[in-house]
Amino acid sequence: MPLYKAPLRDMQFVLYELLNIEQRYQQFPEYADQMNMDVVNQYLEVAADFCENEIAPLNQNGDQEGCHFEQGKVTTPRGFKEAHQKYAELGFTSLTADPKYGGQGMPTLLRIAISEMLCGSNWSWAMYQGLSHGAMRTLEHHGTEQQKQTFLTKLVAGIWTGTMCLTESHAGSDLGLIRTRAEPQADGSYAITGEKIFISAGEHDLAENIIHIVLARLPNAPAGTKGISLFIVPKFNVDEFGHLLERNHVVCSAIEHKMGIHGNATCVMNFDAAQGFLIGPENRGLNCMFTFMNTARIGTAVQGLAASQIAFQGALEYARDRLAMRALSGIQYPEKNADPIIVHPAVRSMLMTQKAFAEGGRALAYFLAQHADIVEKTKDPQQKQASDELLAFLTPIAKAFLTESGNESAKHGVQIFGGHGFIIEHGMEQIVRDARISTLYEGTTEIQSLDLLARKVLKSEGKLLKNMTDLIDQFIFENQSNIHLKSYLDRLSNLNMEWLEITQYITKNAKQNPEEIGAASVDYLYYSSYIVFAYLWARMAKIAQHKLDKGTTEEKFYQAKLKTAQFFYDKILNRTQQHLASIKTGAESVMALDAEDFAF
Amino acid sequence: MPLYKAPLRDMQFVLYELLNIEQRYQQFPEYADQMNMDVVNQYLEVAADFCENEIAPLNQNGDQEGCHFEQGKVTTPRGFKEAHQKYAELGFTSLTADPKYGGQGMPTLLRIAISEMLCGSNWSWAMYQGLSHGAMRTLEHHGTEQQKQTFLTKLVAGIWTGTMCLTESHAGSDLGLIRTRAEPQADGSYAITGEKIFISAGEHDLAENIIHIVLARLPNAPAGTKGISLFIVPKFNVDEFGHLLERNHVVCSAIEHKMGIHGNATCVMNFDAAQGFLIGPENRGLNCMFTFMNTARIGTAVQGLAASQIAFQGALEYARDRLAMRALSGIQYPEKNADPIIVHPAVRSMLMTQKAFAEGGRALAYFLAQHADIVEKTKDPQQKQASDELLAFLTPIAKAFLTESGNESAKHGVQIFGGHGFIIEHGMEQIVRDARISTLYEGTTEIQSLDLLARKVLKSEGKLLKNMTDLIDQFIFENQSNIHLKSYLDRLSNLNMEWLEITQYITKNAKQNPEEIGAASVDYLYYSSYIVFAYLWARMAKIAQHKLDKGTTEEKFYQAKLKTAQFFYDKILNRTQQHLASIKTGAESVMALDAEDFAF
Repeated sequence: MPLYKAPLRDMQFVLYELLNIEQRYQQFPEYADQMNMDVVNQYLEVAADFCENEIAPLNQNGDQEGCHFEQGKVTTPRGFKEAHQKYAELGFTSLTADPKYGGQGMPTLLRIAISEMLCGSNWSWAMYQGLSHGAMRTLEHHGTEQQKQTFLTKLVAGIWTGTMCLTESHAGSDLGLIRTRAEPQADGSYAITGEKIFISAGEHDLAENIIHIVLARLPNAPAGTKGISLFIVPKFNVDEFGHLLERNHVVCSAIEHKMGIHGNATCVMNFDAAQGFLIGPENRGLNCMFTFMNTARIGTAVQGLAASQIAFQGALEYARDRLAMRALSGIQYPEKNADPIIVHPAVRSMLMTQKAFAEGGRALAYFLAQHADIVEKTKDPQQKQASDELLAFLTPIAKAFLTESGNESAKHGVQIFGGHGFIIEHGMEQIVRDARISTLYEGTTEIQSLDLLARKVLKSEGKLLKNMTDLIDQFIFENQSNIHLKSYLDRLSNLNMEWLEITQYITKNAKQNPEEIGAASVDYLYYSSYIVFAYLWARMAKIAQHKLDKGTTEEKFYQAKLKTAQFFYDKILNRTQQHLASIKTGAESVMALDAEDFAF
Repeated sequence: MPLYKAPLRDMQFVLYELLNIEQRYQQFPEYADQMNMDVVNQYLEVAADFCENEIAPLNQNGDQEGCHFEQGKVTTPRGFKEAHQKYAELGFTSLTADPKYGGQGMPTLLRIAISEMLCGSNWSWAMYQGLSHGAMRTLEHHGTEQQKQTFLTKLVAGIWTGTMCLTESHAGSDLGLIRTRAEPQADGSYAITGEKIFISAGEHDLAENIIHIVLARLPNAPAGTKGISLFIVPKFNVDEFGHLLERNHVVCSAIEHKMGIHGNATCVMNFDAAQGFLIGPENRGLNCMFTFMNTARIGTAVQGLAASQIAFQGALEYARDRLAMRALSGIQYPEKNADPIIVHPAVRSMLMTQKAFAEGGRALAYFLAQHADIVEKTKDPQQKQASDELLAFLTPIAKAFLTESGNESAKHGVQIFGGHGFIIEHGMEQIVRDARISTLYEGTTEIQSLDLLARKVLKSEGKLLKNMTDLIDQFIFENQSNIHLKSYLDRLSNLNMEWLEITQYITKNAKQNPEEIGAASVDYLYYSSYIVFAYLWARMAKIAQHKLDKGTTEEKFYQAKLKTAQFFYDKILNRTQQHLASIKTGAESVMALDAEDFAF
């Protein structure tokens, strides 16, 4: 199976060279002493060591063993529990939490970078941490002081873990349909009753207690999404000091058998008048959830990027090793009885695509995380709004596109191995199976596409798009005299105009027929994603060219960056054309068939 | 899991209306009384019943149970053996074989249609038959009379099964590297020694003997592909009457653990001076194999088409059933608490894509099979050559594109199910896992692409392409007065010219740098595939329009055909643009990075 090697050099490139964090985080007193190379590199190196040596070795066994369910208990694969303890001891569970509750108060960006390594080395294991983080963030933002003291501190310490209980069997994307009830009790708590499905990390043996964050309806709550409230439901009830009391009436009744992420327990959770505590205002549960959902979407985007990275690593090693046929331009390695397959253009194209997706995806995910930090910490309302809007616009793009491109990279990974890619032992097919979940959970690609086009672009009357195209125009303007960038900037400039035009075109059509929005949405998301990638690749090319011009000891690294940018522009960016053409044909042929007439 | 329902109406559409088999097979005396609706429909109905009721119910269990290996023996999943017996009793193993050896002498086209149903209902089970068929064909074409009497008759009767033993661990796509040795023995037989991997159906419990067709090298054979010979190696030695004698020295030493097709045993086969018999001339084994390989490629194309079909069926049923959110244009089903997801354009687009791939794929696969029949049976050398060349040109396209589009359809199938698609129980993820093998075996997509561009198009100096564009031009010419087809014909006409131009462009570039061929090949294959599909969809639209104009009781069926053609032209055919643009950027950015500089 592919050995995971944290791509530290490229992570540093994005952090220090592209995002310039040493300078940009100076404005925040909380981070001024922390976001420098020494501190950040130390975090990254400890995390890389943990990922490469502690959890990567558990990845394949975790897949093969899976989780075991017996009488309400879930046993995770061998080594998962010990790795969790080590992770907590290393302080990673407390990374971004408020120091008041035991946290280290580090920014989201650092967490996202570390999260990339966790997901790349062991997706299933990393999910336990991801869900816990979601619960922590929700408590931090919406919990009372007492709730934080009781629950958050233990989550931060990694002694307990958390979950997010949203989905019900009939209510996935459409949370307005949920039925779980919350009955107010005399003591101020609530009795929560209902069944939740697809609860990742809902039950396991990593920690002594599990804190569920649960969506449920109060009696007489309005129907739909405006009648949903949020509750804390601990697995074990606890006293005010956090000591465990009796078992609460929430049990895992089954775990799912899944295509992938076997090491993570996907639980059916039954709440039978379980004791719960309201977080945030009544009937505003979905609003409280949005904080989590947006963070979770960036987190899922990072999983997609991690899939691209590990699929690339595995395939690259194999492509350098495996011998088959001779290069079309003549024998390259006469001492071998065939050339390594990396000489073949079709293999190279797949590797370059993976590389362009991984490195471009890293740039996008980290870029978003940086803006999440700005939104959270800036005191400048204009800066806050700008970052908030950019985040709103880019989050569905990152979530959908990084996971879809992660799936594509995983596919190439198997393909480069040929028939061997299909064999479990090599570990490449596991990447496909694990990554497959990422375009489904936290809002499918189709949901993200509607979010982007309907809620973000059209509802803002194009403002959120305009922010982005302005950013690109600004970059073009600032670099117009840079001859090395000319071909990139010309492409970007054309695409930028085309992007605004096609958006206007959809806007106009949507006024005649709202289905035009849905029919255009997925193409629009892909179309937009390639342009966003093109912008980031142009920025990265600029930096690389600058370093090369100045003189550097890392010439090969920067040359590779330039060549990958060129590859992206030559071979991938053209995909915008198909999506543009498809948008232009409108909704008619999509909507033409009656539901009854699809098959005979 | 999706229930398999044989798409008989659409199969009949392709057979009788598109390919006009009743008329076209009249020219062959062998088929004149057989290829009529009565006979063919009866075959199809018996096969559909067998597939829907005998092997489809074994599909999911087959995946879950898998094959078991113990001390050289393989146990197939429950029911597989009984289904094989029933299949043989129904006469399907003898379908296309020469009546002289117990066969029914039916054409390949009928086998391909039945094979679609077998693969759609139980891919793993169907493979046992596919491999047997390969062995039968090889024996029929290259075996001696005695070999046929001894081995072929038993394979035809389904009492024995066969395999094709090509791959070795270091030699997959590059068969020139194989090392298995064949030592001539005093009695005229050969002692075969070596290890073969990825031998589908290499060992199992379905039949009493297994006839391996094995590639091996004679002593002092020339190196590479010109020194490979072909041998029959039976699992049990047999006397001239076909009675089983002692066990031959060929054993299965392990079976692979794979991403999918768990019900089919993928075996490591060890030959330890096993007794073998030469088939065909010495050192011409690969040439003898080509017959099999080309048929096998059409067979694999059919697997891809079958994946599109079953993924479509499963997703369609779910999309009509599952409720989530309301249509953007307003509530469609007020009596329900949400609309079925088939109202949403993004879901419809995926369903329509699957439908366009399944029905277009069926047209292409059957079209090829018809030409395979012509090549085999025609006495007209011109007709033979035309069909042979068309087959040579279209086989890599069908193999690569039907399997890639099958994978895409399978992905959409999971996606339409949302999170539920990831759960094993629903059966949608199994389609993804099973279908994944199809772009790998029988020559990867990349190998097919090189075959198409380098061997078929460039080596023929464009002749094989010209045959195809002439066929399209002829269709355009014949229908130029048909106003209903105008928009299709205009597109086809432009694409046809563009196709020739881009081929010339590649030809020119390849003279400067042979790597241009490899760099263009995969894009060229996709590009060509979409045009071939466009041609077939235009032909199908023409038929549907004609039926509607004439008046029909099946108005909805033909309307759906027209609307699917329109969808293909609106939403899928645009993909040619990205591939064209990508080809035009050439090899430079693909070849730019040194093998050492892909990662740092």
